[in-house]
Amino acid sequence: MSFIEVSSECDFPIQNLPYGVFSTKDNPRKRIGVAIGEFILDLSVIKHFFDGPELVEHQCVFEKETLNAFMSLPCTAWHEARTVLRSLLSRDSPKLRDDPDLRAKALIPRATATMHLPVEIGDYTDFYSSIYHATNVGIMFRGKDNALMPNWKWLPVGYHGRSSSVVPSGTAIHRPVGQSKADDASTPTVGPSKLVDFELETAFFVGGPATKLGDRIDMDEAAKRIFGMVLMNDWSARDIQKWEYVPLGPFLGKSFGTTISPWIVTMEALTPFITQNMIQDPAPLPYLKHTDDYNFDINLEVSIKPPNSKVDYVICRSNFKYMYWTMKQQLVHHTVNGCNVRAGDLMGSGTISGPEPESYGSMLELSWRGTSTVKVGSETRKFLADGDEVNLRGWCSGDGYRVGFGDCRGKLLPAVSGHQ
Amino acid sequence: MSFIEVSSECDFPIQNLPYGVFSTKDNPRKRIGVAIGEFILDLSVIKHFFDGPELVEHQCVFEKETLNAFMSLPCTAWHEARTVLRSLLSRDSPKLRDDPDLRAKALIPRATATMHLPVEIGDYTDFYSSIYHATNVGIMFRGKDNALMPNWKWLPVGYHGRSSSVVPSGTAIHRPVGQSKADDASTPTVGPSKLVDFELETAFFVGGPATKLGDRIDMDEAAKRIFGMVLMNDWSARDIQKWEYVPLGPFLGKSFGTTISPWIVTMEALTPFITQNMIQDPAPLPYLKHTDDYNFDINLEVSIKPPNSKVDYVICRSNFKYMYWTMKQQLVHHTVNGCNVRAGDLMGSGTISGPEPESYGSMLELSWRGTSTVKVGSETRKFLADGDEVNLRGWCSGDGYRVGFGDCRGKLLPAVSGHQ
Repeated sequence: MSFIEVSSECDFPIQNLPYGVFSTKDNPRKRIGVAIGEFILDLSVIKHFFDGPELVEHQCVFEKETLNAFMSLPCTAWHEARTVLRSLLSRDSPKLRDDPDLRAKALIPRATATMHLPVEIGDYTDFYSSIYHATNVGIMFRGKDNALMPNWKWLPVGYHGRSSSVVPSGTAIHRPVGQSKADDASTPTVGPSKLVDFELETAFFVGGPATKLGDRIDMDEAAKRIFGMVLMNDWSARDIQKWEYVPLGPFLGKSFGTTISPWIVTMEALTPFITQNMIQDPAPLPYLKHTDDYNFDINLEVSIKPPNSKVDYVICRSNFKYMYWTMKQQLVHHTVNGCNVRAGDLMGSGTISGPEPESYGSMLELSWRGTSTVKVGSETRKFLADGDEVNLRGWCSGDGYRVGFGDCRGKLLPAVSGHQ
Repeated sequence: MSFIEVSSECDFPIQNLPYGVFSTKDNPRKRIGVAIGEFILDLSVIKHFFDGPELVEHQCVFEKETLNAFMSLPCTAWHEARTVLRSLLSRDSPKLRDDPDLRAKALIPRATATMHLPVEIGDYTDFYSSIYHATNVGIMFRGKDNALMPNWKWLPVGYHGRSSSVVPSGTAIHRPVGQSKADDASTPTVGPSKLVDFELETAFFVGGPATKLGDRIDMDEAAKRIFGMVLMNDWSARDIQKWEYVPLGPFLGKSFGTTISPWIVTMEALTPFITQNMIQDPAPLPYLKHTDDYNFDINLEVSIKPPNSKVDYVICRSNFKYMYWTMKQQLVHHTVNGCNVRAGDLMGSGTISGPEPESYGSMLELSWRGTSTVKVGSETRKFLADGDEVNLRGWCSGDGYRVGFGDCRGKLLPAVSGHQ
C-alpha cells in the first residue's frame, strides 16, 4: 500500500506505476512521471533515489523529455526502477512520505498536468492478431469459406504504419479527405470520408538496446524486449482504405491519426494478470513456439460521447485475451528477417474483437458493414459522426484494486475545408 | 566553374553541390558537407559565410550531425545556401580559393571520408509509380488483362516502409530468413530467402517546417516541400513477400534493408534536367493535377559485381523519366488526408522500369520471374547470389558536365546462421 490514498476504482494504484511524460502550466518543460492515484511523481525531482547498481550511472535518463533513454536500458534496469518506486511510495517508507518539501516538489496533481507522447516513436508496426476480428472482416469481404487468409494462422500478419501521426489521448482528429469509389461508380471521387471508424487496439513498446540490422530477437529473449503497453485507437477511414489498399496495404485510410493512451503500463505490472495463451492450431513453426503463457486478462471497453452529450456510452466490451498471436510471437516474427528494432518502436495488436457481437472492436463489425445500427445513448450510428468523442478504456481486475491504462480519447472533428 | 578541378565524368561538379554527412578518421564527429569534385566542403568550418537574411540566424544548422535542421528551414533558405556555396567555390571568388589555411581545414578528400545517413528519417514511404514496373508485375501475377489494378491510374499507390532499416551505401545486407510457401506445398517453411532481389528506385526527402496533423500540402506548395533526391535500393525477398503480403502489404520481405546513396542532390541542381511529364489518362482528379513539368531526365543504371570479381557488370539501364506519377503528386496525395510530414521523411519512387526489357529495374522483371537468366559477366543469375554486390548509379547529362548521385552500393551476405 502507498501512503498516497488511492481509490479502488482508480487505474493507478501502487501495483501499477505506469510511466508517462507530462508538463504543467507552472513548468512547461516535459518531464517523466509515474502515475500514483490522483498524482504524478515527477522522476526528474527524485532521480537521486535511483542509486542501485543498474541505474546509479544512468540517473540522467529521468531528466529527458521522452522515455526512450530509460527504455533503451536493459530490463534489469526497469526492474530496479520499479523496486525503487514501490519502496519510495510505500506506506512504510519515510523518505518521501515525511519530507513535505520534497512531496510538494515531486507530487503533482494529475488534474493539472498535460500529457504528451511518452516516447519518440521510431517505427510503428500494426499487427492483425485477433482471430475474431480477422474472421469477421474476412466473412464480410470474402465470405465465410475464405474468411481467414491462408497465411493468417502461420504468421502474425502485420504492416508498417505511420509514426508521425501517432498522437496522445486528447488530440482531436479531423475527418480525413481522400479518394473512394462506390461499388456502382466507374470512377472515384475525392471528398471527406463517409466511413470513419475507430479500432480498439493495444500496443507495446520495444525496450532494451537497439538491435543491429541482421540480428534477430529469439523467443527466449523476447519478453526482456517488451517494455510495456498502451491502449491504441487506430482511426480508420473504411472507404478510403477499400479503394487504395490493393496490393500494398492500408495507407491514407489509417495515417490521418492514431491515438495512444499516454501512460505506459509496464509488463511487470501486468504479470499478475497473465492468462492462458489461445490454442494455436496448426502448431506454430519452431521460431514462433513458446510454451509459457504470455497472454493477459485485460478488460477493454469503447465508448462514444456524441456531440452535446456529457455521457460516454459504452458500445463495446472486449478483452486482450482474445489475441491469437502473443506479443512475444509478434516481436520474434518481426525480427526473424534481421529487421532492427529500437527502444520506442510501437507495435499494435490489431483490432481486438471477442467472440460475441458486443465485443467487436470496430464500428465496421458492430454495425456489420453498416447493415445494422449501433445504439449510442438515444442516438444510433453505423460509423462515426462529426463531434463524436471516442474513448478506450482498459484495466486488469486485482483483489481490491485495478491496474488500468487511463483514457485513450479523441474527438472526431469535421473535415478541414478547402479543396475537394 | 570552380577553382577546384572537376573532371567531366565526376558526379559532383559545381552545378551539383549535393549535401551529405561524413566523418573522418582524424575527426570522427559527424558533420555536414557538400561534395565538390574529389573533395568534401565541411560546412561546419565555413558556416560563418552563410550570412544572408535567411541563414544568418540559423548558421547552427550546419553544425548538426544530420541535415534535418537545415532541411526544416523554408526553401528560400536552401536557395540562399546554394547561392553562397556556388559563389564560395567559384573560380572568381578569392574567399576560400586564396586562403590556404581555410582550404586545408574545410576541404576534405572524399576518399578519406566515411559517409553516414544524411538524415534522421522520421517516416519512410514507398510508392509504386512506374507504369512499366506495375504492368510487368501485374502481368506476371494476374495476367495481361488485369495487369494494372483499378486504382493505379487514379492515385499514386504507396505504403509505409520501415525507417530503422534504411542504411547508407556501403552497408552489407544479410540474406533474410523468413517464411515462404511453395505453390505445391500445403504448409510454409522457414529458412533463408531463395529469391533476394534489388529494386532500382530513387527517393526524395521532404523539407520545410513540419506540417500539423490535419493540414494538407496543396499542389502549388508541393515543389517547395521537396528538398532533394537520392538513389535507393529497396532490397526485396520475393518468396517472403509473396506469402505474407495479402492483405496488408509488404512487410518482412522488405524490412531487412533499404540502401540509399549518401549524397542528397537538391531539386535546384536537378531543375535543368526537367522533362515532360508522362501523359496521364484518365486525367487526375483536381487535387492531383499540375500543368508544369516536374519529371526529370535522370539516367539510371544497376550493376552487379559477383563474388571474386572486380568488375561492376551493368545489367539494367533505365531512367527516372519513366515515372507515371510525379513527386509533387506523390506528396500531395500523401497529405490529402491530413497526414503530417516532417523534414527528413523519405519517399521512394517504387521500382523504375522502362519500356524495354533491358530497362527493367529488378531481377524479378529481368529474369521474368526466374523463367530466363540474366548475364552478369561470365555468370548468370535469376535472383541475387550470396556475395553479389549491387550498385545503383544515376546522373543527368549536362553540356560538358554531369549531375550525379554517386554510389548506392551494397553487398548481399549469406543468411545469419542460427535457428531456422
